[in-house]
Formats: sequence, C-alpha cells, structure tokens
Amino acid sequence: MKLTLYTDYSLRVLIYLASKPKEELSTIKEIADSYKISKNHLMKVTYELGKMGMIETIRGRYGGIKLAKDPSEINIGKLVRRTEEDFELVECFGKHNSCVITPVCGLKNALAKALNAYLAVLDGYTLADIVTNPMEYRMLFQEQLRPDTDH
Amino acid sequence: MKLTLYTDYSLRVLIYLASKPKEELSTIKEIADSYKISKNHLMKVTYELGKMGMIETIRGRYGGIKLAKDPSEINIGKLVRRTEEDFELVECFGKHNSCVITPVCGLKNALAKALNAYLAVLDGYTLADIVTNPMEYRMLFQEQLRPDTDH
Repeated sequence: MKLTLYTDYSLRVLIYLASKPKEELSTIKEIADSYKISKNHLMKVTYELGKMGMIETIRGRYGGIKLAKDPSEINIGKLVRRTEEDFELVECFGKHNSCVITPVCGLKNALAKALNAYLAVLDGYTLADIVTNPMEYRMLFQEQLRPDTDH
Repeated sequence: MKLTLYTDYSLRVLIYLASKPKEELSTIKEIADSYKISKNHLMKVTYELGKMGMIETIRGRYGGIKLAKDPSEINIGKLVRRTEEDFELVECFGKHNSCVITPVCGLKNALAKALNAYLAVLDGYTLADIVTNPMEYRMLFQEQLRPDTDH
C-alpha cells in the first residue's frame, strides 16, 4: 500500500513552500536540491499543483513559485484524492478488471469503507497542521543547500 | 495506493476456499484456472497462507488445500497486516529512507493515523463476512472451469 510518487512529491513541494516566509519565492531547482530528488519529476508536479490552484508561478528572471493559499486552506485529504487519481487498491477498483467474482464479491465494499476511513483522517489535516514548525524544516533544507556539505 | 499482488491473491485464495463446502479440497491449478491467474504466483501464496495457519495442505494423489479454520475465525485486517509486510505509504515508512525532513515532518504521523483507521475497518471483517453467499461465488468459478466455454 503505497502512495504514488506524484502524491509524495506534491506533498513535499507544498511542505517546502509552507516552510518559507509568506510570499518568498522558491525555484524548482532549489526544491529538487533540498530533497535530493529529480527536477524533471518536480516540473510535472508543480505544473499540476498550479492547475489545482494550490501554487502560483511568478515568471521572469527573479520568478519562482509560492503557495497560492494560506497553508490552513490546503486540505491534505482533498489533495491526496486529487493526486492519487484512482485508488486501485485491488484490480476491481480499476478500469482493467478481469476478476471473475466481481459481481458477487463482498471484499470491494470492505476495502472501499477502509479507504474512506483513511481519507477521512487526512481530511482532518491541513498543510498548516503538517508544518507547525517552519523554522525547523528550513534549517534542514538549508543544510542540504549549503555548498560545503558533502551529503 | 494499491495493495500488493501478494495480498490480493491471498484474499482470492481464501475467498475461493470459503466458497467451497466445508472440508472439500481444492487444487492450486483449479484456483488459478478459476481466476485466470498464474499458478506460480499462487504456489507462493498458498505456501505462506499455510505457514500462517490459515490453510491446510493434504498431500497425495487426491490431496489439495482447504481452510484450516472456520471463515468466521479469519480476520481480514489481521491478514492484510501480515501480507502487506511493510506499509510503505511514503519513503519514510520504509527501510531506505533518505527524505531530509524526516526528523521534523508532521506528515508521517498523519499518514500513520490514516493507515490505522484503514486497518481498523478491515479488523471489523472476517472471511465469513466477505463470503456470505458461497453458492454465488461457486457458480462464477464453475463457469470459468467448464471446458466448453471460450472465456
């Protein structure tokens, strides 16, 4: 049971931006370097977060990205519902289902209820609840970006 | 968010066996043919289910497998906890974690609570709750096994 890399990276980008002082711009390169993850992956992720209205892109030489809303207005459950696309827990949740017992099986219902309980917990969290300590995050990020460290 | 194929197939084997009249033996080939899935995959799955004490293997020419317990004694949450091995929702749940914000991140806690809620729902189900209608399952399986069908 694993969230997609797309969900994972979306959350990381939002956490990074929420750790910054309000209105301060960040670059994708800086976020990629901070987490030591691929910049290419983050390009797609930030594009989609922009389409969802969660981040804003300022173009130009001194451009960058920032949160489009206050962290308290970004709900984690809502985000995960969007970034996970389909919640294909087992084959019959997806489009290409060939499981023969689908018409009578009681498992799908049980798994759907479990998934709802999972998402209901995440609905109780906003980005502000995740990043209550922005300074602590910032210190860890800055450590990654310092040129003299040999991480 | 997907359960492993191992969990999926473990559930399918148990459902198959629970659909049979008590004490009737099934073969792995028959289960594989019924679901149209690989017999090799099921070999490993049935071996592990045997180790967990959920199914029993009778050796010999007329041998086969059957449930080692009543379906009402096989808990779905307990099974999924065992077959999923690790619940690596995101990187920091696993052994090879290199996410830099791990020491301060509030997300892991939120995801762990969500996972607990997910499993708590499954703890409320036994195999008997999933297979309340064994005859209906049997009809679907028999249809797959009939030699004159061109499935």
